[in-house]
Amino acid sequence: MHSITDLQQLVTKTLATKKYGHDPIELYEPIDYIMSLGGKRLRPCLLLMACDLFGGDIEKALSAAIGIEVFHNFTLMHDDIMDKAPLRRGKPTVHEKWDTNVAILSGDVMMVEANRLMMLVDDNILRPVLDVFNETATGVCEGQQIDMNFESRAIVSVHEYINMIRLKTAVLLGGLMKIGALIAGASQSEATLLYNFGEQLGIAFQLQDDILDVYGDPEKFGKQVGGDILSNKKTYLLIKALELATGDMLAQLNYWLNHNSADPAEKVNAVKAVYARLDVRQAAEAEMNKYARNAMQSFEAIHLPAERKRVLMDFAEQLLIREY
Amino acid sequence: MHSITDLQQLVTKTLATKKYGHDPIELYEPIDYIMSLGGKRLRPCLLLMACDLFGGDIEKALSAAIGIEVFHNFTLMHDDIMDKAPLRRGKPTVHEKWDTNVAILSGDVMMVEANRLMMLVDDNILRPVLDVFNETATGVCEGQQIDMNFESRAIVSVHEYINMIRLKTAVLLGGLMKIGALIAGASQSEATLLYNFGEQLGIAFQLQDDILDVYGDPEKFGKQVGGDILSNKKTYLLIKALELATGDMLAQLNYWLNHNSADPAEKVNAVKAVYARLDVRQAAEAEMNKYARNAMQSFEAIHLPAERKRVLMDFAEQLLIREY
Repeated sequence: MHSITDLQQLVTKTLATKKYGHDPIELYEPIDYIMSLGGKRLRPCLLLMACDLFGGDIEKALSAAIGIEVFHNFTLMHDDIMDKAPLRRGKPTVHEKWDTNVAILSGDVMMVEANRLMMLVDDNILRPVLDVFNETATGVCEGQQIDMNFESRAIVSVHEYINMIRLKTAVLLGGLMKIGALIAGASQSEATLLYNFGEQLGIAFQLQDDILDVYGDPEKFGKQVGGDILSNKKTYLLIKALELATGDMLAQLNYWLNHNSADPAEKVNAVKAVYARLDVRQAAEAEMNKYARNAMQSFEAIHLPAERKRVLMDFAEQLLIREY
Repeated sequence: MHSITDLQQLVTKTLATKKYGHDPIELYEPIDYIMSLGGKRLRPCLLLMACDLFGGDIEKALSAAIGIEVFHNFTLMHDDIMDKAPLRRGKPTVHEKWDTNVAILSGDVMMVEANRLMMLVDDNILRPVLDVFNETATGVCEGQQIDMNFESRAIVSVHEYINMIRLKTAVLLGGLMKIGALIAGASQSEATLLYNFGEQLGIAFQLQDDILDVYGDPEKFGKQVGGDILSNKKTYLLIKALELATGDMLAQLNYWLNHNSADPAEKVNAVKAVYARLDVRQAAEAEMNKYARNAMQSFEAIHLPAERKRVLMDFAEQLLIREY
């Protein structure tokens, strides 16, 4: 068994020396750039952990792990164009630093590179691994489109929201865990249990993100608290509040959805006051706990000794009690 | 052996009933749209012909053939954004009919779909087929970037230009023929000969396109004759002319590169007059014939009876004597 620290170091070291191509430079420089912006490297580490869980050789999973990180960064590069995001991890986004055309085409090449890396597995699992990868990639694109659609819709149901975050965020976590398991030689049924673990954990993780944006400790959270409220983002909290609110509460919510204040804190506090009266935070935490429990049930159903499961279990628990 | 007409009908019929997905509709409607715009379906037909050449079962190559057409249309969808093209086959481009975000994300999903379709081959050739496909996809992206780079450069060499059209256009023709050959069970060396045939033919074909844009019969060519001259496009003809021209000839070329005329025909005729004095058309035809000969040499080296080769040979010859 490898520790989380070992795996993170392996991923960081491998990414530090990885080359993606050099000519034409306009195509490959942005790839080096976005891949060097860092981040927690959560996804490749989780893929390696999934492989390690089933006693697989993590060296054999390393290319696929890097492939998942390349794929993830490809989606960030294209999403940043669509979201008109100026910054990514505090640095200019690729379409800002270069231009939109460069960000489109470099992203396309990253998608091809992710496929190449994903293929560096044994022949007997090549097809199942690529099937999972393609399924995942389609889901992520669908999730991004549904998320963009939500911006122009007045009402989004909780059910629709959960499905969106499942596609946009969670299927990738499920998919990469399944790939790690397949590389280790796990059976389809065991690999599917780990898929479910990853997917349900991903939904819980995204719900936690919604909660932290409003109630997190600003120092630990690392983002502007209340950012989602200020941008009227349709998070679980807002969707649930709009579902529950009637009369005066609903009027207040609608007022703030159509107004900004000179003092941003005024809007954040006003909306938080509505959330408090509707017990929206509690609803969000209950929903998050539901998906966390689903995740744990799938994990427990995997036929492995508790001792083998400890690293991944500890990591999952850490993920869900981040910055309160 | 199947006739060209048979294969075209099979491709058309298959594409007519092919579904790409339905939810969210914003993601899949543009795919149905661009795939329904038609075109000659040259690439899927050539893949099937390559399979047929080696006595393969064309039903087994049909998914890969459709996959190549999906991939080609994915590159068109993204290229049209980058080139700010308003029309594609006389209809609004996807980014015009919907918007840029839709064209980016639908294109991304098409790339995944192309991968899925490409995987519908027997296990024993899955890896070689995907290797060719990924190599091809990377080349096409590199070619598109190099082409965009040329727009802002004063001087481009003939060598650089040939490499650009090789990557942007010809590697796909080579790659799809190799894939068709592999599906038929051809050896790597025979499949590589067919790759070379396709790639060299693709270069000849693109050079012919440059020639036809200036010297083609407007009725048969179907595009505005002289369009490349009017847009100062760096074609083989212009690049060669800039290489050969000195003194007065060079001054005239540079004048027209920096001026437009109220009467477009004036500019076209003036540049054509320079081309005539520099024998640029002859140089282009000689270059085209060189690559056509290279293609035929590779084709002749394939160990198959002349009778088997006739359909593909006839088709290649038709391609290169289109609309004079």
